[in-house]
Formats: sequence, structure tokens, C-alpha cells
Amino acid sequence: MTFSNHQFRLAARPVGAVKRSDFNYVEEPTRAPGDNEVLVKTLYLSLDPAMRGWMNEGKSYIAPVQLGEVMRAGGVGKVIESRHPKFSPGEFVSGSLGVQEYATLEAKLLTKIDPALAPLPAYLGAFGMPGMTAYFGLLDIGKPQPGETVVVSGAAGAVGTVVGQIARIKGCRVVGIAGGQQKCEYLTQQLGFDAAIDYKAEDVKKALRQHCPKGVDVYFDNVGGDILDIVLTQLARKARIVICGAISQYNSTTGVKGPSNYLSLLVNRASMTGMVVFDYADRYAEAGREMAGWYKAGQLKTREDVVSGLDTFPETLLKLFSGENFGKLVLKVADA
Amino acid sequence: MTFSNHQFRLAARPVGAVKRSDFNYVEEPTRAPGDNEVLVKTLYLSLDPAMRGWMNEGKSYIAPVQLGEVMRAGGVGKVIESRHPKFSPGEFVSGSLGVQEYATLEAKLLTKIDPALAPLPAYLGAFGMPGMTAYFGLLDIGKPQPGETVVVSGAAGAVGTVVGQIARIKGCRVVGIAGGQQKCEYLTQQLGFDAAIDYKAEDVKKALRQHCPKGVDVYFDNVGGDILDIVLTQLARKARIVICGAISQYNSTTGVKGPSNYLSLLVNRASMTGMVVFDYADRYAEAGREMAGWYKAGQLKTREDVVSGLDTFPETLLKLFSGENFGKLVLKVADA
Repeated sequence: MTFSNHQFRLAARPVGAVKRSDFNYVEEPTRAPGDNEVLVKTLYLSLDPAMRGWMNEGKSYIAPVQLGEVMRAGGVGKVIESRHPKFSPGEFVSGSLGVQEYATLEAKLLTKIDPALAPLPAYLGAFGMPGMTAYFGLLDIGKPQPGETVVVSGAAGAVGTVVGQIARIKGCRVVGIAGGQQKCEYLTQQLGFDAAIDYKAEDVKKALRQHCPKGVDVYFDNVGGDILDIVLTQLARKARIVICGAISQYNSTTGVKGPSNYLSLLVNRASMTGMVVFDYADRYAEAGREMAGWYKAGQLKTREDVVSGLDTFPETLLKLFSGENFGKLVLKVADA
Repeated sequence: MTFSNHQFRLAARPVGAVKRSDFNYVEEPTRAPGDNEVLVKTLYLSLDPAMRGWMNEGKSYIAPVQLGEVMRAGGVGKVIESRHPKFSPGEFVSGSLGVQEYATLEAKLLTKIDPALAPLPAYLGAFGMPGMTAYFGLLDIGKPQPGETVVVSGAAGAVGTVVGQIARIKGCRVVGIAGGQQKCEYLTQQLGFDAAIDYKAEDVKKALRQHCPKGVDVYFDNVGGDILDIVLTQLARKARIVICGAISQYNSTTGVKGPSNYLSLLVNRASMTGMVVFDYADRYAEAGREMAGWYKAGQLKTREDVVSGLDTFPETLLKLFSGENFGKLVLKVADA
């Protein structure tokens, strides 16, 4: 079987924000799977802040996407044809499918997923990389103790929502920083955050002082920039900062803004530690089981912001950087 | 007994570099010791980068020196009069004597020292706070393993010389960053550093690449600013940065420069942790014993840069910030 496969291939390394012209939108026939390969139809693609970094040249935690290559993206899809005994047509899988309608790839790069347990897009959010990032970043690096205060930025995003809910489950006071009243209400009214700070409307420093009277014990940072600098002024003794990302800085054309209050680490004997979720690959299953338990018990809610149409990819991706998405941003490519 | 006591009292909060006019140089009679107090004659005073921070207003790890107060300084002195059974006239002590010729203070704030074990000024360097800072910062926060590469900035200073020597003792490759050929030669030829980088004459990034081919596992930062930013680009996976100080930033009137390469912490799963030596007070004795052993065995050398004359205090202090001192900067106030 051969299908027409639309793809976004990287055409240029973006300067500042991503533009449509940084990609070539092309169509080519699918490649038939070879031995141990599987042909997958893309259903949903994960749009993540990290994608911006993958488009840059230079050393990072993962190789950059090369010019001419299909843009890298995690996704959920359905098996169409399989030359590996583990997979059969009609089964659902997740993996690095790329921004395209079909992917032919090695079976070992795919993970089978169960649509009965959670909706398919959730496998790109709470049950996918963002959920794993939240779980290991918070628990392994942040090490929150019951009664401590946990602050998370990008709180209404794919990682932030999970960080805050796990921190609640662990008995912490949880304060989220997000943009807009609607997101903030969602955090406190739907997800059980103790407080939410609308960075677009409030004085973040004053609000942190109010909501974190004993200081910030764990700060899970998804945004960097000014908010990181403000949180640094409110650390408790022995605070732990988890550096998960810096979405405010990824499109900067003038260089990254370093945290000028970093000497607060000294004053407060605090630490700032970077994390990359791939390091925990051998523990994903363990985390998935625990999170599924919380999900079934109603302690962990998921939310996806689903936009339809592969061809909208460049513009939809930009929603992440303008803060327009609300929950995990997912691009719907096809119906199951 | 009453003596004439010259003192430097803080007159103004400095803007930028410290000036003589930030102090009042006054003379008053000594206060006779009350019960459990001791009158100490100051022999040597410790001049430290941290002193600059103590002159600023605002929350820090220690209360700021108040306007009108005698400027805070650690020192070594001789007991003149004692109203505490533990101390007798003629004995040598260390403690927070202040920038003055005599101090009357509670016995419990003093530590007896042995001039037979090491020269008196060494009790302000390798056997004083700088030595303790090096010991606990390197071993407790940096946790260097044999074969790892340790980089220290301010390497020819009071803390840096001890950091590098302990790292050598622990079997690490040690690279020091210091200003000037003379200091660099001292590090490699006298203290056994594997390499030294003259930041005033060399391309620090290129030199780090050359001397740390496997990347930097532990970076002990005394200087902050551009050098911290450069070292961040050369981290090894799971590197540990010890934030001990930031002498390049203390006199800044335009705000502290944050490390704009801090996202290297993420890429390299590295950490940056602040430390304050006072937290380890209950382990000073343990560290002192181990360091005395290394000193006797010839593995740990000390070096002091002794300037004479209490009245030179403001100008002598500035040597720290211009990098003029070579080894622990000590102000000699009187002969023993």
C-alpha cells in the first residue's frame, strides 16, 4: 500500500519566531516498511516548546533537525502495515512520527498505547513526554516534601498542569504562574492549586510574597526570563529550582537573559538543576503506572488544546510562544 | 587597663567600589571586659570579598553592618585581659574582631589558636574561613570524584588556592583561572595545579577546551560574571557548579550580570548550588584536623599577602577587587 504523504521539512534555521517559510510543505509517497518496520498513520502530533530548540544548529541534548529533514515531532498514530510481530494493523502507538501524515519507522521506536485507558491526545500530554517531564523533574530533582511550597511557571501548560497536580498529591502547597484569568481560574478551581498568579495582570513579586509566606521551596521553571528572576528573590532556605525549559527565551534574537538574581542561590543555599526527560526512559513505565492510578482516582486531570489540520503546523506552533494554548497543545492530523 | 582604640566605622553605604569616605576613622578608649568577656588586641585582620556585601543594606545570609558600627572583620589577636576562665592573657585567638585595634567581646565568640601549628595569618586563610569555605564547598557541594576535572576561579586567592590543592589531594585534574602570569605560574609550579589560565591574557574558552578536553565536572566559582558564563559552555554531563561568590559583580552599580548560558545546566543535566560556610560551623574542627594533616605532610601550602597598617584599610581592601592580592589578603595591625 502506498499513500500520499504531506510533510513539513525544515527549510531554514529560524531567526526569532518560527515562520511558515522556515519549512517546505511537500508531498511524497509513503515508503513501504522493510523488515522490522511499521507504517503508521499520524493521528495527533505533539507541539512542544522544545521543538524551537531542535531547529537551531549546535550542540544540545539532542541532535538538531537537519535542513531538508522532516521536522521532528512526537505523535500518536495507528498501525497501517507492520513487518514486526509485536504490532498489528489497527493498533495505536506513540513515537517520534515527525510532522507528516504517515511515518515508516523501526518497530523498536514505537510504544503501544491503550485508548481505553485515556483519550489518544492524552498520550502526548499527561501520559506522554510532558507528563514524564513533570513527574521526574518534580520528584527526582525538586524532591518536594509534604508541607513545602511548590511554584510552577507555565502552570496551565502540558508540563505545568501535571507538576502542580503531583505536588498537590504529595501534600505540598502549590502556586501556579500562568497568563490570563481563565487559566488561573482553571488551576485553582479545576486542578486544586492553592493559588494562581496571572503574570499578565499581577505584580508577580507581590503575589508570590502573599501566596508563599514561608518562601518558595521548589520552583519548577518552564519559562526563564523575568519570572525566573523574580522567583529567585523569594526562595526559602535550601530551595531547589528545576530548570525544565525557558520558553520566554527560545525566540530571542538578542541572546538569552541570564538570571541576574542568581546570587540568591548563595544567600539561600539553594540549587538550580537542569533536567532532560530522556534520561529517565527506563523508568517511564513505572511513572506511567503511578500516574494512571492517580488518573483513575480522579486526582490527576488532563487537558489538551487540539487544533486540526497538518497544514496549520507553523502557525499552531506559535500559540505556545504567545501563551495562547491552554493545556497540552496537540495538532490533529487525521481521524482514527 | 584602657587603651586608645582606632576604629573604622561604617559611615555610608558604598556605591560601587568602597571609598575611604564610606568610613569614619575614629579613636575611642577600649571598654573593659565584663563577666565572661575578653579584651583582645588585634594583630591581623582578614580582608574578604564578602565584606563588600556586608556593607549593603538588605536581606542576605548575614545582617548588614549598620551605619555607625565598627566594620565587621575576622581577625587574629592576643588576649590582653580575660574575665572568662577559658582564656588567659598572652594567648592567641581568632574571631570577629572588627576593623579596630582592640575588641572587647564575649569569650564564646573566640576560638583559641596555636601559633606553633601554623603562622598566625594562616588562621585567616587556609586555617580560617577561606579554608573552611574551600573545604566544605568543594567536598560537600562539588563532590569531586577521582579523575574528574575541577576548575576554580579566583584560583590564586585565599579560597581558590585551597580548593585546587584539596581537589589535587582527591585525585582530580585541577585547572585554575587567575589574573596574571605570576599567579598562574605559582598555581602550576608551587601548588601542583595541572593547568592555569590567565584570564587577563588568554582566551578563556579556548584555554578551557584545551585543558578540560572531557569538560568541566566541578566548577568552584568565586568570581561570577563573564567567566561563569564561559565555564557554563564547557560543562560535562552532570557537572556541579559551586556558587561561592561573585567578586566581579560586587561593585557593580548597574546590577549583577546573570549567567546567560545557564540553560547549559539543562543541556548537561548540571546543577548550580550556593553555599555559605557558616552552615558548617559544627564541622570546622573536623575539617581543621584533616587540613592540618595535609599541611604537615606538605600537601597543602598556604600563602598570605600581608599589608601593614590599620589606617590603610579602605585602600587595601580594594586590592581584592582589582585582583592585586596574591594569596589570602591580610591586614597587619600590630606585632604580636
